[in-house]
Amino acid sequence: MRFEIRARCGRARSGRATTAHGEFSTPAFMPVGTYGSVKGVTPVQLRELGAEIVLCNTFHLMLRPGEAIVRELGGLQRFTGWHGPMLTDSGGFQVWSLGELRKVEEVGVHFASPVNGDRVLLTPERSIEVQRALGADIAMVFDECTAYPATESAARASMELSARWARRSREAHGDSPAALFGIVQGGMHSALRRESLSRIVEIGFDGYALGGLSVGEPKDEMRAVLDDVVDAMPADRPRYLMGVGTPDDLVDAVARGIDLFDCVLPTRNARNAHLFTSRGVVRIRNARHRASAAPIDPECGCYTCASFSSGYLHHLDRCGEMLASTLATIHNLHYYQHVMARLRAAIEAGTLPGLIEHLRRGWNTEHEPV
Amino acid sequence: MRFEIRARCGRARSGRATTAHGEFSTPAFMPVGTYGSVKGVTPVQLRELGAEIVLCNTFHLMLRPGEAIVRELGGLQRFTGWHGPMLTDSGGFQVWSLGELRKVEEVGVHFASPVNGDRVLLTPERSIEVQRALGADIAMVFDECTAYPATESAARASMELSARWARRSREAHGDSPAALFGIVQGGMHSALRRESLSRIVEIGFDGYALGGLSVGEPKDEMRAVLDDVVDAMPADRPRYLMGVGTPDDLVDAVARGIDLFDCVLPTRNARNAHLFTSRGVVRIRNARHRASAAPIDPECGCYTCASFSSGYLHHLDRCGEMLASTLATIHNLHYYQHVMARLRAAIEAGTLPGLIEHLRRGWNTEHEPV
Repeated sequence: MRFEIRARCGRARSGRATTAHGEFSTPAFMPVGTYGSVKGVTPVQLRELGAEIVLCNTFHLMLRPGEAIVRELGGLQRFTGWHGPMLTDSGGFQVWSLGELRKVEEVGVHFASPVNGDRVLLTPERSIEVQRALGADIAMVFDECTAYPATESAARASMELSARWARRSREAHGDSPAALFGIVQGGMHSALRRESLSRIVEIGFDGYALGGLSVGEPKDEMRAVLDDVVDAMPADRPRYLMGVGTPDDLVDAVARGIDLFDCVLPTRNARNAHLFTSRGVVRIRNARHRASAAPIDPECGCYTCASFSSGYLHHLDRCGEMLASTLATIHNLHYYQHVMARLRAAIEAGTLPGLIEHLRRGWNTEHEPV
Repeated sequence: MRFEIRARCGRARSGRATTAHGEFSTPAFMPVGTYGSVKGVTPVQLRELGAEIVLCNTFHLMLRPGEAIVRELGGLQRFTGWHGPMLTDSGGFQVWSLGELRKVEEVGVHFASPVNGDRVLLTPERSIEVQRALGADIAMVFDECTAYPATESAARASMELSARWARRSREAHGDSPAALFGIVQGGMHSALRRESLSRIVEIGFDGYALGGLSVGEPKDEMRAVLDDVVDAMPADRPRYLMGVGTPDDLVDAVARGIDLFDCVLPTRNARNAHLFTSRGVVRIRNARHRASAAPIDPECGCYTCASFSSGYLHHLDRCGEMLASTLATIHNLHYYQHVMARLRAAIEAGTLPGLIEHLRRGWNTEHEPV
């Protein structure tokens, strides 16, 4: 994977990454295609709304349909019909999310499959093997997400385990043509984050991610971690903040030098009638939209806003129509892509602070009751 | 509404209808947009898969969101984003389907709203008023569907009620710019069907529909009704067989001179992983599709078949992904539109019997276990 920084504005950067399946501009937001489908939209719709790279979940695809089927059917791109760049996570976060249902050992994580109850062992080697079979352009090391809150000693033990797993992941990856990203852990402890970063950089990866954020901590703690760590991350490699977040989170992190994001928020919230707009959050289920001829967002150029009134979307939601989810997903993902495109343009024009102020003023326009 | 017959082949006709919102070719199949959305697909996808006219349900839209909202938001086309021709049914079939929950009187039908329990009275005048507010290009008279089986005297009483309601519908319609179609009832009784037709024609409508079919009767009885009645329907007006059916039913009816169809079968079955193909019915949930790289239908040019393997569709279905329903709906509706286009071309080329034989041979290729 090639990665080129094109412009800087303060600590923020804009760039361009090149993979075997095409290019994507950074800062970039990756829609999440858990089971190999971004819920509710087709690959054509994804492309039209501006997505350039998609994330799929190793944990889910390993269990269903199994990586052997995906490989047999030509790999993730051919399987899903998304022919652009793709990233697979390692499953580390998903097994951690199983809570009591998983058991962590040095070798890896034992858990019972939520699909059929089978006992499964996920190790760094196995995660990399599955990711290789899936065939994405960017793979992630297998890591342990640190709980929040965590004592310093618990966070250290977890960070050190992740560092050992990172090395095993790197070795298992071998000469695979895919890029491999390392993941920095360490909880909310500044010294541990910096130590984690230096261990991960020492191993050497094609990109560096921050894991274990957006796990329940206050926003200020996430910002403090970014302030502690991002500037120390290798400047010539993509920096990826995993599982984050709201439009405001993205702006915060881009301003601090992050290049890559993924999050289920725009898609999951869309299915709950929760829409992100230039004026803040719109809850289309509210009765005030019942007879509204206005689009969800008057500043938005997405298919949904160009074609449908808030009144129609409110009606579809009330009737439980699938199309409500699809149209809301198109809008939310388009809005995220649009914000990223504006951030990139502002970085290139040297006007990022002004844009951020403008975006935040807009987000405070609507104060819609839940 | 203008209607022009362009070609005939035996009793079959191909034609072209012109409405205020554009033209459609006949024989035509109308996807059903119950609540103002063809479940699972956008208007753009509908257009791309070949639909030219869409049906919406008066009964459903009257209850949610109410016709006043639809009118306020610009009428059905503007509301739904489908800017082509539209037909609304009268609600007669839906209130009949309520069974014990409705009470039929001369004035109309009393029922409890399935949405909120409100007592509602639907009359010919009210149905026409709602349809006018919805603003479709073609409205239907309010009728009573005759139960199957029905004694001759019950079928006669029902047919006579429908005839009186048809006259009231015609009067209520007045000088509305929309077309109004009459509906022939009479159950499976040949003499009653003919009497119903002559009463409805005497009132005078822009098109004529056959109601009360595909209500549980054997296929032979439906064919017998078509053989009894279709040739006697005015030749210069569209003939519409309501609520029918399978691809085989469409072929049967087109060969007997029917021009217009609607049915939930392709959309509802799609959501249950039941696909109509050139080789017969494919049930994508079957394990045999698990690792199949082939499209659902090797002869199909729809977006789904051009882009995705049966293995991927099987996987999406197993995971309960929304996209499974969307892609199956695109395929099924495209297949229906494709069959209609081929029937039209064969009527114009004078080769309809050969095409029908070819289609039926194909449908017998697959014998997939349920």
